[in-house]
Amino acid sequence: MSEAAVTLDGWYCLHDFRTMDWAAWKTLTSDQRELAIREFMTFLEKWENTEAENAGSHALYSIVGQKADFMMMLLRPTMEELNEIENAFNKTMFAQYTIPAHSYVSVVELSTYNPVNEAGEMDPMIKARLFPELPKWNHVCFYPMDKRREGNDNWYMLPMEERKKMMYSHGMIGRSYAGKVKQIITGSVGFDDWEWGVTLFANDVLQFKKLVYEMRFDEVSARYGEFGSFYVGNILTKEKVPAFLNV
Amino acid sequence: MSEAAVTLDGWYCLHDFRTMDWAAWKTLTSDQRELAIREFMTFLEKWENTEAENAGSHALYSIVGQKADFMMMLLRPTMEELNEIENAFNKTMFAQYTIPAHSYVSVVELSTYNPVNEAGEMDPMIKARLFPELPKWNHVCFYPMDKRREGNDNWYMLPMEERKKMMYSHGMIGRSYAGKVKQIITGSVGFDDWEWGVTLFANDVLQFKKLVYEMRFDEVSARYGEFGSFYVGNILTKEKVPAFLNV
Amino acid sequence: MSEAAVTLDGWYCLHDFRTMDWAAWKTLTSDQRELAIREFMTFLEKWENTEAENAGSHALYSIVGQKADFMMMLLRPTMEELNEIENAFNKTMFAQYTIPAHSYVSVVELSTYNPVNEAGEMDPMIKARLFPELPKWNHVCFYPMDKRREGNDNWYMLPMEERKKMMYSHGMIGRSYAGKVKQIITGSVGFDDWEWGVTLFANDVLQFKKLVYEMRFDEVSARYGEFGSFYVGNILTKEKVPAFLNV
Amino acid sequence: MSEAAVTLDGWYCLHDFRTMDWAAWKTLTSDQRELAIREFMTFLEKWENTEAENAGSHALYSIVGQKADFMMMLLRPTMEELNEIENAFNKTMFAQYTIPAHSYVSVVELSTYNPVNEAGEMDPMIKARLFPELPKWNHVCFYPMDKRREGNDNWYMLPMEERKKMMYSHGMIGRSYAGKVKQIITGSVGFDDWEWGVTLFANDVLQFKKLVYEMRFDEVSARYGEFGSFYVGNILTKEKVPAFLNV
Amino acid sequence: MSEAAVTLDGWYCLHDFRTMDWAAWKTLTSDQRELAIREFMTFLEKWENTEAENAGSHALYSIVGQKADFMMMLLRPTMEELNEIENAFNKTMFAQYTIPAHSYVSVVELSTYNPVNEAGEMDPMIKARLFPELPKWNHVCFYPMDKRREGNDNWYMLPMEERKKMMYSHGMIGRSYAGKVKQIITGSVGFDDWEWGVTLFANDVLQFKKLVYEMRFDEVSARYGEFGSFYVGNILTKEKVPAFLNV
Repeated sequence: MSEAAVTLDGWYCLHDFRTMDWAAWKTLTSDQRELAIREFMTFLEKWENTEAENAGSHALYSIVGQKADFMMMLLRPTMEELNEIENAFNKTMFAQYTIPAHSYVSVVELSTYNPVNEAGEMDPMIKARLFPELPKWNHVCFYPMDKRREGNDNWYMLPMEERKKMMYSHGMIGRSYAGKVKQIITGSVGFDDWEWGVTLFANDVLQFKKLVYEMRFDEVSARYGEFGSFYVGNILTKEKVPAFLNV
Repeated sequence: MSEAAVTLDGWYCLHDFRTMDWAAWKTLTSDQRELAIREFMTFLEKWENTEAENAGSHALYSIVGQKADFMMMLLRPTMEELNEIENAFNKTMFAQYTIPAHSYVSVVELSTYNPVNEAGEMDPMIKARLFPELPKWNHVCFYPMDKRREGNDNWYMLPMEERKKMMYSHGMIGRSYAGKVKQIITGSVGFDDWEWGVTLFANDVLQFKKLVYEMRFDEVSARYGEFGSFYVGNILTKEKVPAFLNV
Repeated sequence: MSEAAVTLDGWYCLHDFRTMDWAAWKTLTSDQRELAIREFMTFLEKWENTEAENAGSHALYSIVGQKADFMMMLLRPTMEELNEIENAFNKTMFAQYTIPAHSYVSVVELSTYNPVNEAGEMDPMIKARLFPELPKWNHVCFYPMDKRREGNDNWYMLPMEERKKMMYSHGMIGRSYAGKVKQIITGSVGFDDWEWGVTLFANDVLQFKKLVYEMRFDEVSARYGEFGSFYVGNILTKEKVPAFLNV
Repeated sequence: MSEAAVTLDGWYCLHDFRTMDWAAWKTLTSDQRELAIREFMTFLEKWENTEAENAGSHALYSIVGQKADFMMMLLRPTMEELNEIENAFNKTMFAQYTIPAHSYVSVVELSTYNPVNEAGEMDPMIKARLFPELPKWNHVCFYPMDKRREGNDNWYMLPMEERKKMMYSHGMIGRSYAGKVKQIITGSVGFDDWEWGVTLFANDVLQFKKLVYEMRFDEVSARYGEFGSFYVGNILTKEKVPAFLNV
Repeated sequence: MSEAAVTLDGWYCLHDFRTMDWAAWKTLTSDQRELAIREFMTFLEKWENTEAENAGSHALYSIVGQKADFMMMLLRPTMEELNEIENAFNKTMFAQYTIPAHSYVSVVELSTYNPVNEAGEMDPMIKARLFPELPKWNHVCFYPMDKRREGNDNWYMLPMEERKKMMYSHGMIGRSYAGKVKQIITGSVGFDDWEWGVTLFANDVLQFKKLVYEMRFDEVSARYGEFGSFYVGNILTKEKVPAFLNV
């Protein structure tokens, strides 16, 4: 039997992708639309308060292409809070004019493969990474991934030492993008259809392509990485929401 | 020819996942909604009576993310009873405001690979596991799985002894979570699209991730496990139903 | 080049799975519903006459889970008759309240791999198997399957002798369920997306699981079987139809 | 680098599968339905004129099972003409009562692997095969296919000679069905999701099954063939259209 | 660790495929339809201005078959501009009568594998290829692709030299189509579900088939290419738009 890596877990995470039902949205009077927008803004303000109290974090991005119109990413201390927010949102008048496009359930995770994480348990740096305030950078990229288990390319049958070595080299690439790309790894084994979710933030959207492409030549990705759908988006600040929804 | 394991079968099992049609639900008057909620509550009460009489069991959980809003899990002595409950539910006014999201048909199963099951036939412990009362724990995790049959990784071509040994080691991991995770294995060969359904219950939702991740490094899962979609949820007690459905 | 097995073909076969649109069904007056039910009953009676004249056969089962509400299985001497029945059904008022869920087109087939079939051409036993009256047993199980063509596990590259030997051993398992499970094999190469359809009938639904699971350890299935979706159901006699549709 | 086969290309081809929206169709008055049927008949007559002028060909078949209700197959000298016919059809009142079910874009193709095609360039026999009048036989079978590129079974890495030899043997099977099955091969590399479309015509529908099954044991199919969905249908002559659409 | 190729990136790219909702479109008065068409024409004129100012480019093609009715391809300097155009389009009255069919997000890319690109950095030829004016040729072909990572066919594990050599040979095929096929490669690693998008333009639609088929025998495609759905279309000039939409 192969040995599992030790992981530390932080806030629970929900990625919620929505498409606007623009045709239905336009049937509303402008008063009704304003009401619905205010309803959504109230949610955003409440989430900002939670973030200010360091009791969670969130991000709102518009998504490019037909996969979705926008993504809400929510971090909270419990699965129950995520569920409550989701259900409360679904009951709003605004939600009635959105169509669920995709969602992902996970928990912020740090793996001890990477020696930089082994420095100490719950020292402030670790804590900041497990309970992060999501950056307000211009762009987001989200994709889920698995470690492959196929024939001779079976990650979970490798000895711990080999996995550790490969993850270290992998981490080195990530670190060379420090300041350009901020990466949040969330674990979803037992929670959703892939083993991990990867959420990247950057001010220069091209950095996503450079980072993911460079990593693909790294053995961990080349031989052992399986990737799901990629979503890319632009920040949607609270101030821009009314214009985004204006018809 | 490889030798099949002997399995014992208990209650038949239906997992029924539903999404609320909130927009339609909100078009009802609050009287109509109350009527529909009462209709659903009557079903739950009937199911509680069945459970009290030890003639079946059930569980109701809200599901996190867009895959579904809630899951009903039903255990009954016959396939006909499951079908009757399903059809009766589908004819309710309440069901009209739900959208079928996923379902799974199986039967509670104990396999004799694991020596702990070989102690005796139908001694009380075995019986309790074949005809279980589902725990009322905070969280549920459901996923279906297959044993792989691919190239050199073909479970069904292995000698009985090898499978037995691997399942024993696998069972050891499961047992190390005793008290933290309760696991119901249901067989679905001939009944649904995967070979087994796995339903986990825990008070601490993180235990699902820890257990499934640890098992993934075990040869049985690493080389021979194929997994379907994962659903994770929070308990929805009868008392919480009206609030859950309140708009 | 490998040598193909000789097959005998009987009646053409259509499996037609439907889901009720209960919400629309309930908008009808009880008179309208009764009219629609009678329309459906008239079809069933016509099919019974065809069966009595030994000019075809049919089966009607309710399906467990969300995949469908019921399945109609039809055997007829020509593809044109299947198409006519299907089109006539689609034009009924009743059909307007059903949603197509799945269908499968095939023809009853006997393969001469299995020596029990080689006894004679069109002797009464062979004829009865090619033009069978479907049993009225309590349960049905349907699934489609392929023989695998992958790397070293390529059924169609095996010599005839090897295939014959494996099919013989496979047939032995099937025969050990005689009296418990009745199996109708229908060929669908050139007609639908899989190579065969398997329809099993049993009075004890657990026998489906036991048979399919035991066979999975047989080399033919373990190395060469690819399986599609499984449907399981309970008999829906003509007498039970009004209650089944009563809302 | 492996050497590509030389191919000759003829008419462009569109397979267009449609499902009737019977419920909506029945809401029309019989006058409106007659109008829509006449509209469709006018299209068919125009297509017959094109066929009479040898400027294209077409076929109309009802499809068995739920995949579609009917298929229109159109051959024309340019991609623009196919597109115009498709768009004109989509704008008819009749089309409003059909639901697009599937389509396939390709071009009639002859490959010179098969020596029978190498006799001469554009001699009348070759011309007739590139610009064929589709037969009015009782049954049609359509499926798309690829040549496999997987591990040791990579068609495109084989030397020309080996491919040629295998295709010759493959062609021999096809030729043994002369008079029973007419086969139109259309190439779709660069046009649609598979490399080829295969359309078979027969008066005896069982010949499809016999031909495709026999070929499956041929190395070209056994090791190198990947197949998509199969559609099977019965001829729908212009004269039968009103009855087919009568409700 | 394998070494990544250096890539140069140009304009961001959105492929947006739409299907007309003809039934709804026909419910409009001809005045309303004219208004909606003018709205769309205004977008096209604005895009033409952008192209005239060399600040982007676009293409509009009707698509053959049921996959979509038309495709808009947009090149712009930033991801934000693509998103704004998309959102503005979605809010038009015209968009209400279209159904999203598919989209693809990428960025124009030149790879330095191919020595023709290595001549110099941002010399005019390179610049013209990174910020191209899309040709107004008769036909378009779009498909996404990956480089394979499977068993012994793992592109990303090959040494740089080997990849370079294979890409050079691959480029030679492409160059032999100069004047017949214009190819725009867009990178989508980190942006969408495949690694690259390939958009081909030709006046003779058959050239797509010839080029893609010839390349398939090249080792790069034969062993390492994975392809998604193919879309083929005919140019839809601004002048033809009113006729295209006329009902």
